[in-house]
Amino acid sequence: EVESVEQLMEIPDDTVRGKIVFYNRKMNPDNYYTFRSYGDISVFRSKGVEVAAKKGAAAILARSSTYSIDSFPHTGVMRYAEGIDSILALSVCTRDADRISFLLKTFPKARLFVKTYCHTYPDTISYNVIAEIKGSEFPDKYIVVGGHLDCWDNSEGAHDDGGGCVQSMEIIRLFRATGYKPRHTIRVVMFMDEEIAQRGAKKYAEEALSKKEIHIAAIESDRGVATPMGFSADMPDSCYVALQKMTELMKSWGIWLVYPGGSGVDIGPLKAQGVPLMALVPDSQRYFEYHHCANDTHDKVNQREMQLGSASMAALIYMIDKYEWKY
Amino acid sequence: EVESVEQLMEIPDDTVRGKIVFYNRKMNPDNYYTFRSYGDISVFRSKGVEVAAKKGAAAILARSSTYSIDSFPHTGVMRYAEGIDSILALSVCTRDADRISFLLKTFPKARLFVKTYCHTYPDTISYNVIAEIKGSEFPDKYIVVGGHLDCWDNSEGAHDDGGGCVQSMEIIRLFRATGYKPRHTIRVVMFMDEEIAQRGAKKYAEEALSKKEIHIAAIESDRGVATPMGFSADMPDSCYVALQKMTELMKSWGIWLVYPGGSGVDIGPLKAQGVPLMALVPDSQRYFEYHHCANDTHDKVNQREMQLGSASMAALIYMIDKYEWKY
Repeated sequence: EVESVEQLMEIPDDTVRGKIVFYNRKMNPDNYYTFRSYGDISVFRSKGVEVAAKKGAAAILARSSTYSIDSFPHTGVMRYAEGIDSILALSVCTRDADRISFLLKTFPKARLFVKTYCHTYPDTISYNVIAEIKGSEFPDKYIVVGGHLDCWDNSEGAHDDGGGCVQSMEIIRLFRATGYKPRHTIRVVMFMDEEIAQRGAKKYAEEALSKKEIHIAAIESDRGVATPMGFSADMPDSCYVALQKMTELMKSWGIWLVYPGGSGVDIGPLKAQGVPLMALVPDSQRYFEYHHCANDTHDKVNQREMQLGSASMAALIYMIDKYEWKY
Repeated sequence: EVESVEQLMEIPDDTVRGKIVFYNRKMNPDNYYTFRSYGDISVFRSKGVEVAAKKGAAAILARSSTYSIDSFPHTGVMRYAEGIDSILALSVCTRDADRISFLLKTFPKARLFVKTYCHTYPDTISYNVIAEIKGSEFPDKYIVVGGHLDCWDNSEGAHDDGGGCVQSMEIIRLFRATGYKPRHTIRVVMFMDEEIAQRGAKKYAEEALSKKEIHIAAIESDRGVATPMGFSADMPDSCYVALQKMTELMKSWGIWLVYPGGSGVDIGPLKAQGVPLMALVPDSQRYFEYHHCANDTHDKVNQREMQLGSASMAALIYMIDKYEWKY
């Protein structure tokens, strides 16, 4: 049992060889922005498994990234550097992690047997799903808004990222319902394969480049469904100033947070083409109850919170469409 | 079936006499602050039942105040003016309200039979529950923080207002855990009988007056447990300016909303003594899923959101204790 990759590094290889490494760090509750704490634990997948493999470990068990004490193992993508043989790596729900830890402390000679039935199936062909309202003035200029259609494999993916897809589709419904005719083409994209290799995202950016499509903005909703707090923005300063002014008008419905930062994995590849990128930022307090586990089901999504997210994105897209970045 | 009290008023008494009045207004989804929409519907209890009684109605059914379509009747306090005979008044869950409305439209001659098993039991003696940390410098000056211990009768009252009580008790635990010795006496009060006649609140204010206890601030948490957004304040301008400066420091954990407005029903009677009053304001998007119905159970409270509320109140009390209102 170790709490960090650094701690494992200090243990001699001989002690580790043939053993199961148990990464058991609790998610740090000190961060208001819970994604920061997520990073601390997901390092067990991104780096911890590789270090354990190099030391000859038989397998790793990693405590799930959630504040809840529950029975859902939370998983996620895992990568090895070239030339490292993969070892068995399993996520352990927090309830079991606490139990295993207790047993190890009480019975230091305890042995753990691990058996898994997981498979990796061969790749199959899938597609981004795209819908749009043609722009009345600039049909060749695009504002793109989207989420991703795949989800982590043992759940419905309601928060990650069914909700983001629905919120994006809703923009088109809202514009139709209000009768607003956008000047630019509003394109809703449900990207494929965000979870593993971002092939949908890369393909979309490639096609945009080869077809010379000009994107004046891209917004992603992929941080769960909860009351929206604001937007994270990755864009030139001139646009950022306009964004601040636009969002100032949205304060009456709780849009108080605008900050320079990342956007979303799916729209990320558009950055190379100079597209101003944004992410819808909802309240993240409950996200890691659902993220990448079997608990991410549709009954956990609150309709009102989802609508507030759509409305916020719709309002922002309306302003960008109307004033471009000259607001 | 009517949508408003005004609409009922226009219907001749003869048509209403002996009938069941069905108030069926949906909760208005246009308000970001959901308490505003709550007012529209709770008027059926505060005024609608009286108007129906005067017109000789046999009973009223009132659609529940919630955005959800669910099976929980939501209730609340009901009052009659002197000299009006009470009639049967029932809350109908939104699912049934939609069904009754459909049936009335489809079969205009449909008849509805209503039977209820509700009782009002005789009053019994109960008490406010009070705990405090004595102030190191000004033991005779108080900062009071609290919620109410009673709840609407068919539920656990987790959001209304078990959570507010727990958040208030937590202030004492946090001060003990950090070793902070407050200058003023910090008093946690769990008020009794908020739901019906506010007898605990009135008694507390009376005793404060008769014992000449000086309260420099009072904070109430009674708007459900959710991510805190800020504080509502009912206080002199000089204090309000200090409050704005204090809360400015709390923006990094989402305290963005400070506004002049009501505080809480339990601390309200202290206003006559000139006490600066505040209410913790959490996100209200989900509150009316739980408010005054059997769904208000402890499994619906998120620990992290509850802790953020306590932490926000603790930080504010720390500043008031340290700087009084001279910040």
